Amino acid sequence: MGSLDSNYDTESPASLGQFRPLDPEEFRKQAHQMVDFIADYYKNIESYPVLSQVEPGYLQTCLPNTAPYQPEPFENILRDVHKDIIPGMTHWLSPNFFAYFPATVSSAAFVGEMLCTCFNAVGFNWLASPAATELEMVVMDWLANMLKLPQSFMFSGTGGGVLQGTTSEAILCTLIAARDRALESIGVNNISKLVVYGSDQTHSTYAKACKLAGILPCNIRSISTAAVSNFSLSPVALRREIEADVAAGMVPLYLCATVGTTSTAAVDSLSLVAEVANDYGLWFHVDAAYAGSACICPEFRHYLDGIERADSLSLSPHKWLLSYLDCCCLWVKRPSLLVKALSTDPEYLKNKPSESNSVVDFKDWQVGTGRRFRALRLWFVMRSYGVANLQSHIRSDVQMAKMFEEFVKSDMRFEIVVPRVFSLVCFRLNPFSSSDPCNTESLNRKLLEWVNSTGRVYITHTKVGGVYMLRFAVGATLTEERHVTAAWKLIQEGADALLNESLSLILRKVLP
Amino acid sequence: MGSLDSNYDTESPASLGQFRPLDPEEFRKQAHQMVDFIADYYKNIESYPVLSQVEPGYLQTCLPNTAPYQPEPFENILRDVHKDIIPGMTHWLSPNFFAYFPATVSSAAFVGEMLCTCFNAVGFNWLASPAATELEMVVMDWLANMLKLPQSFMFSGTGGGVLQGTTSEAILCTLIAARDRALESIGVNNISKLVVYGSDQTHSTYAKACKLAGILPCNIRSISTAAVSNFSLSPVALRREIEADVAAGMVPLYLCATVGTTSTAAVDSLSLVAEVANDYGLWFHVDAAYAGSACICPEFRHYLDGIERADSLSLSPHKWLLSYLDCCCLWVKRPSLLVKALSTDPEYLKNKPSESNSVVDFKDWQVGTGRRFRALRLWFVMRSYGVANLQSHIRSDVQMAKMFEEFVKSDMRFEIVVPRVFSLVCFRLNPFSSSDPCNTESLNRKLLEWVNSTGRVYITHTKVGGVYMLRFAVGATLTEERHVTAAWKLIQEGADALLNESLSLILRKVLP
Repeated sequence: MGSLDSNYDTESPASLGQFRPLDPEEFRKQAHQMVDFIADYYKNIESYPVLSQVEPGYLQTCLPNTAPYQPEPFENILRDVHKDIIPGMTHWLSPNFFAYFPATVSSAAFVGEMLCTCFNAVGFNWLASPAATELEMVVMDWLANMLKLPQSFMFSGTGGGVLQGTTSEAILCTLIAARDRALESIGVNNISKLVVYGSDQTHSTYAKACKLAGILPCNIRSISTAAVSNFSLSPVALRREIEADVAAGMVPLYLCATVGTTSTAAVDSLSLVAEVANDYGLWFHVDAAYAGSACICPEFRHYLDGIERADSLSLSPHKWLLSYLDCCCLWVKRPSLLVKALSTDPEYLKNKPSESNSVVDFKDWQVGTGRRFRALRLWFVMRSYGVANLQSHIRSDVQMAKMFEEFVKSDMRFEIVVPRVFSLVCFRLNPFSSSDPCNTESLNRKLLEWVNSTGRVYITHTKVGGVYMLRFAVGATLTEERHVTAAWKLIQEGADALLNESLSLILRKVLP
Repeated sequence: MGSLDSNYDTESPASLGQFRPLDPEEFRKQAHQMVDFIADYYKNIESYPVLSQVEPGYLQTCLPNTAPYQPEPFENILRDVHKDIIPGMTHWLSPNFFAYFPATVSSAAFVGEMLCTCFNAVGFNWLASPAATELEMVVMDWLANMLKLPQSFMFSGTGGGVLQGTTSEAILCTLIAARDRALESIGVNNISKLVVYGSDQTHSTYAKACKLAGILPCNIRSISTAAVSNFSLSPVALRREIEADVAAGMVPLYLCATVGTTSTAAVDSLSLVAEVANDYGLWFHVDAAYAGSACICPEFRHYLDGIERADSLSLSPHKWLLSYLDCCCLWVKRPSLLVKALSTDPEYLKNKPSESNSVVDFKDWQVGTGRRFRALRLWFVMRSYGVANLQSHIRSDVQMAKMFEEFVKSDMRFEIVVPRVFSLVCFRLNPFSSSDPCNTESLNRKLLEWVNSTGRVYITHTKVGGVYMLRFAVGATLTEERHVTAAWKLIQEGADALLNESLSLILRKVLP
């Protein structure tokens, strides 16, 4: 019959014997092998360059153009993971990863995720998997309790929470609920009158969600922030914008405030902006994707003060609560508004419990229909570690960030650009304080590239208030003090190299 | 200090020793334990009732109201999975699960998913994990090849594919791309003129995605289908609707056709409706969530004929390609339209490869920013089994469905309601063909309840063209012929019981 590798055209089954893709003993064998592979990867993770050093298109040259017609042994695939995949990974779990915000993990979440995968339950409604729905309700209330959210956000009170994949979905869903409520009173043809508010530090996904929801891009207000107020949203400026919009006949719809912005971990004062939002009847959403997790510690809880006046809150445990991707908690005060905007009721999903209104059907709280049993991960994390350990994990990261902050302060060539609040340090190399800002930016760009090209650490940058700065985000799960110390030494080494280079250039110009 | 279980208020770390949530050896131990737990679950899965028999609220009574302050042993959590979670599961992977469409799985996808979890790479752009982006490009082209999609949908041609969570997201993203292209020419204030089309069999998530995107609900055309054309979308009716809309000054935007509808696996003729869509410049999307996978077999490929005239295609390997949730493939002919509508460019994600336009940044092909390394699952599946086994898996499910169809045909009391095309059989009990349709519906409702309440199989229903019918969807990964045979016997047993009951009621009325 000849090779069929890129043709696949045979109508008679190949003589492969009986195909049993989920034989429990074969499963057991392969999964045990994979556990060891992963445990070894975690053990050796420091031996890989943190930031992948491959060139675009590297993988296409390693792999064939078509899928194989015949099966390949498991060992070959594992071999290729080592050979072809790992060199192309940027190792997010490396203890030397200080980029973006870390995505934190734990053994408990891993086994919880294994179990979620195992069940493969599609929990679109209660009946399709009662435990999936009910455990989600339980863990959302547990975490709400840990955060001391008011009862108005809990199932045990008058609200409730749901797990989404990402903040983007959480914002989109609440925005749709707010939009539909507004359109009901102003008429669906007036969607172009709806205006939404955030600051110039609100996550980029907010504007995207607004555009998805049909809000005109010109109606997305991005209020300028300033260094003097640590890049937090000004309630005065917010009120001014809203009043101008109202005066122009527009309809203020939605405000997104942030606890821990992506660039600098800035915190908007929820109490102050809530007052403005409440005055004008806006839906007030709080995006606490990163820093919300810190609020399980009493010393950070005050950053959520005012949350009782919000309509919704999102927080991503995949960022700082050890739970692997993807896991974003969304709490809402009035679930009925979500359900009204997002519910579907096809015949093929009709069932008695749903019709009796005695259950929650989470498909009506999200964008899609299907959903995974994500709650298991959080349940495993909370029970395996207890609140005590989760608090100490947050504190330990903050402590290491403080240590890094001290390092920066102790070297006169560097400066802290934005006061540190949580576990992110924004700093820059600025040895000639009076010099041209362009030079400083260029120097820091070079330093970033120098440091990352070593493969020994990975840090990223941002630019806020016109200032280019480096971000050192502590919190990768495996990071210990020694990694922070080594990273700082490397950064100093880079500064030495770059400054010596500058110096010799200057000397070469001055001396004949 | 006393118990802090529901208080958690201490600012000093508890004396817990060093907290190491990802110690590789502890990870190894727990993950191995979980592998055995899962392998045993799969081995014993038939011993559980397929459809959970719990009552709403059962779990809240088992679990405490708050998360524990101190850690709990892993064994206790596993014990509670057995005790509290498993009874609340509807076992989607049971070989006796014939409800909805099965969500299929495999050892290969499981270990691929473990590896995806392990890396925890947030692949929003190329640099953040080159391998994640590039492997996704490779497997999307591989699957496109298996489906004999034209080069216009492949990266090796002029298009490309991306993994989404669910069909809902795939539809939403393409709809936004279509919407924004249209608004560019008609003006953003004319969003209320945009009209979208589907049939009354299009998945309910379509209307939801349209509403999310700001399409007015009154502009969502749901074209009636009929039994005579097996509930497929009529190109004649479609053209009529579009012409009426154009005549009324509306702007036809988007058509969603389906290959394998959720109720009855009906297939819209892509060639015929493509002609209409192309004539009026609509974005033509094909939702082949369930049945698309069958088209890797040459004998089913003709159901995709006409795909070359579509703008986009979505297909969910989590349904029929053994890949666990969640995994939906989306191919588009013009990726630039997706990117234009969905891209974001915050400073903190700027990097040289992205700026050089030499790489794909998948964050601009989807709703959110963050994304998991889902491609690993498909890569493991395709390599571990080869196209040969994947084809034989599809054929084996279809063969079992044929067998069930024959069972139904051989019992005069039953009838096939809609001709079977793939692995779904739509049938009903109809022993008194001439009787009141309400009685037939009521009888089938009772039969459904009788069968499902045994816990021995799980089937669901639908209602199409006014006819209530039962759906028998073959394809849970562990299902063998013996399970189909046993399920049929149980259904017959239910029919016997119900009909005997009816008979005695009649006799009791007739006889004194």
